[in-house]
Amino acid sequence: MRVSQRIQAKYDELIRRSREISLLSSCSELLSWDEETYMPPGGVEQRGRQLALLAGLRHEMLSNPAVGELLETLESSPLVEDPDTPAAANIREIRKSHDRRRKIPRLLLEEIVRVSTSAQREWSTAYKTSDFARFRPWLEKLVSLKRSEAEALDREGELYDALLEDYEPGARATKLEQTFGALRDKLVPLVNRISNARRQPDDTILTREYPLDAQRAFTRRVAEQLGFDFNAGRIDETVHPFCARIGPGDSRIATRYSTSHFAQGLFAVVHEVGHAFYEQGLDPELFGTPAGNTTSIGMHESQSRLWENIVGRSLSFWNFFFEKARDAFPSALSGVRLDAFHFAINRVGPTCVRAEADEVTYNLHVLVRFELERALVNGNLEPADLPDAWNSRYKTYLGITPGSDRDGCLQDGHWGSGLFGYFPTYTLGNMFAAQLHARALKDCGDFSERFSRGEFGDLLEWLRQNVHRRGRIFQAERLLEVVTGSPPSHKPFIDMLWNKYESLYGL
Amino acid sequence: MRVSQRIQAKYDELIRRSREISLLSSCSELLSWDEETYMPPGGVEQRGRQLALLAGLRHEMLSNPAVGELLETLESSPLVEDPDTPAAANIREIRKSHDRRRKIPRLLLEEIVRVSTSAQREWSTAYKTSDFARFRPWLEKLVSLKRSEAEALDREGELYDALLEDYEPGARATKLEQTFGALRDKLVPLVNRISNARRQPDDTILTREYPLDAQRAFTRRVAEQLGFDFNAGRIDETVHPFCARIGPGDSRIATRYSTSHFAQGLFAVVHEVGHAFYEQGLDPELFGTPAGNTTSIGMHESQSRLWENIVGRSLSFWNFFFEKARDAFPSALSGVRLDAFHFAINRVGPTCVRAEADEVTYNLHVLVRFELERALVNGNLEPADLPDAWNSRYKTYLGITPGSDRDGCLQDGHWGSGLFGYFPTYTLGNMFAAQLHARALKDCGDFSERFSRGEFGDLLEWLRQNVHRRGRIFQAERLLEVVTGSPPSHKPFIDMLWNKYESLYGL
Repeated sequence: MRVSQRIQAKYDELIRRSREISLLSSCSELLSWDEETYMPPGGVEQRGRQLALLAGLRHEMLSNPAVGELLETLESSPLVEDPDTPAAANIREIRKSHDRRRKIPRLLLEEIVRVSTSAQREWSTAYKTSDFARFRPWLEKLVSLKRSEAEALDREGELYDALLEDYEPGARATKLEQTFGALRDKLVPLVNRISNARRQPDDTILTREYPLDAQRAFTRRVAEQLGFDFNAGRIDETVHPFCARIGPGDSRIATRYSTSHFAQGLFAVVHEVGHAFYEQGLDPELFGTPAGNTTSIGMHESQSRLWENIVGRSLSFWNFFFEKARDAFPSALSGVRLDAFHFAINRVGPTCVRAEADEVTYNLHVLVRFELERALVNGNLEPADLPDAWNSRYKTYLGITPGSDRDGCLQDGHWGSGLFGYFPTYTLGNMFAAQLHARALKDCGDFSERFSRGEFGDLLEWLRQNVHRRGRIFQAERLLEVVTGSPPSHKPFIDMLWNKYESLYGL
Repeated sequence: MRVSQRIQAKYDELIRRSREISLLSSCSELLSWDEETYMPPGGVEQRGRQLALLAGLRHEMLSNPAVGELLETLESSPLVEDPDTPAAANIREIRKSHDRRRKIPRLLLEEIVRVSTSAQREWSTAYKTSDFARFRPWLEKLVSLKRSEAEALDREGELYDALLEDYEPGARATKLEQTFGALRDKLVPLVNRISNARRQPDDTILTREYPLDAQRAFTRRVAEQLGFDFNAGRIDETVHPFCARIGPGDSRIATRYSTSHFAQGLFAVVHEVGHAFYEQGLDPELFGTPAGNTTSIGMHESQSRLWENIVGRSLSFWNFFFEKARDAFPSALSGVRLDAFHFAINRVGPTCVRAEADEVTYNLHVLVRFELERALVNGNLEPADLPDAWNSRYKTYLGITPGSDRDGCLQDGHWGSGLFGYFPTYTLGNMFAAQLHARALKDCGDFSERFSRGEFGDLLEWLRQNVHRRGRIFQAERLLEVVTGSPPSHKPFIDMLWNKYESLYGL
């Protein structure tokens, strides 16, 4: 491919602008990380103003007509001939973002950032006091603002799709509805079979006393063994676990520990380590360009769920770590056998709280949220009616009714942060993870012995080569097809669950 | 004063821009705070890029011709009629910044930020290994860049003055030379009298074992008692103590603790609390405008030194805290008497390291740096000749010669961070502090009894009313005159030192 100096100069200028925008994002990422970890309470208003300004500046840079002019020239250049090159992907993806941004007024965007910062705080108080009435006006404001955003983006299609696009480019609600419906039809019978099984785990061993300092040390040990680089990352503590990528060489995990819930803090870290691996595995040369960025939230979630559930809850993982856990928590785990422990961390059963759900019922929790946020955004559900709608769906899909809004529709902070269209990515992540893992097994052979020896490098390397290094050159669905040879499907996930739980519960 | 709608609109627009610039600064402040406290080593390059971008954006906003046009209109409006109003001060100060910025090319500025980030890292290694040769090329680069900056700012005057203006607006090297000379002529004999005094403190009690956790708790207790608001601030740990102001409601202190140097960690915090008070005392309504900002680094330093030395090393302060210190450090302090402890923390004597110097010799350390950085910037000293020049001045002013460059010209990180013209503000701070304190005594009466009861609020309130709330409405020298009724003078400082040390050492 021959590229003239003129074209190359225009491409370089596009990339320079992309890098600046990305650097500004990474500043926001640090500000948000700090907000969730160390910021004193008095700093919250200033933080909202800072984040709104940075969002506004990014918005201006990305929607700048000069970007449009550069793109126009580049789109008819030899750089786009092979669509699967970093350059072509960058031009395609920057075009998409530029066009989206040009449709959203800066004032609307800054308003959303500002209202979200306050709404988040109000949600947090409403959550603690289980007070939906307190959160309702904020939810109403946010739904209305996000509907305006969706209308600005696309008046033609389904409003919800316009928001979904931010998290899972290419996904459509009608298709998700089908996939999730098919999944539900397989999951509900599985959950019933498990609930009625005669063999049941004793998971009280997980709620004994696990001293916090021992948890911190053990968790750090696990992260290190998996391959998390503490020279290029940290683990801190927060209310809701997350992973922040400040840039190449700086990926941070935040988790929470509870004395009586050893598994929660640990699996949160293994989960976030999976996210961090994706970030750490991106091509640093391409940093600040779409080709050097993750491809979708669903794919991101596939990485975290693969490490959390498929690796972290496997018997071979605990073949290596269980002795060490017994040393770390002698009073809680002495006398506990490995198979009993392994069964306990894989307990399945309907509960009210998503964050504490097992990998099977988890997807039913997501289904509830997907249906409700879609209805909110499309104007088919009034925010005031949310608690009733929530509870009735929990009854239908999980057979239970939350005792309070705190354990019901107030349990997640997503909507209060303005995230509508984010929830489906959790279930997509589960599906993608199973499909990727099945392919990794074909390419690398069974990992059990390696995991039992504490060797996780082969799997990580496979993910790096096949997923991480490819950045956003492919959209998620296409990437999955390129890597596994098949389009996305819920079958590998269902097969994996049936295999695992048949033998565990003796179904 | 009548202001037309047109003028008011222009003023509002100027303030909007000022606030945006200030918000960007506060983002940089958080990034720098993080760099010194929690950032993993791998994040350093990204951090340099982030800070350079934000500095470049600020630069562009401030030097924007639209700001110049707004200023031109406002400078002939009724808003500037009374120069001592917030509006007039804002117009005057933004004009000064705008004119300065327009003289500095953005590329030079970003280059300085980038080189400083690397130079800081190199300095840190050079410092640890006492390897001046390693730091030299970076020092040469920075001196050359800062000379270019000074030349761009003002080809007419002394180059050093152009840099000094960034930290101490209005100060001039020739005048500082006189003041510092007069000070030296008073300090050297005082140091000699003290060194030859028969009565000498036993300061080995300060280097016993002081457990770190007890230090953390005690220090926090002291900060709280002084009036530091942990709802609007934090204390973290770092290599070189500092205070970061992220914005109204968020001022952060970082200190270092050493098991065998109780006084170091504690007084570093009391010092930084003084800085934080100034930031916390600014008018939040004026945030983001010069009138809502601190007036100079020298005035800032006066606040920290007032709390550290005049309050923190006073007998009345320890009348309240000594019992609590004995409870916190029973093995180190049992059997130690209050007056012996008070004498120990006020030991005076020549040492090589500024950061460990007492309040008397401290100013001789500053004098060495002032003379040397002035010579470097004016082109009268080659960076290669720095170690010799340093050592010979220490011999002249303090009568000692550092055993290594680590304890000599490599001991401070300022120059490696591109700070030339900053050092004089330390001694100005000492002078201002004494002058302000003398006035506070006149207005509020002797504080001893109140301090002995743990009541520090009257002094803090006096500082808030007289200094903090006035922001940058006056330049430092004028503010001092407005508050104390006299122009800045070294006499109150010298008087205070003689009074204190005459009685302590029985001179």
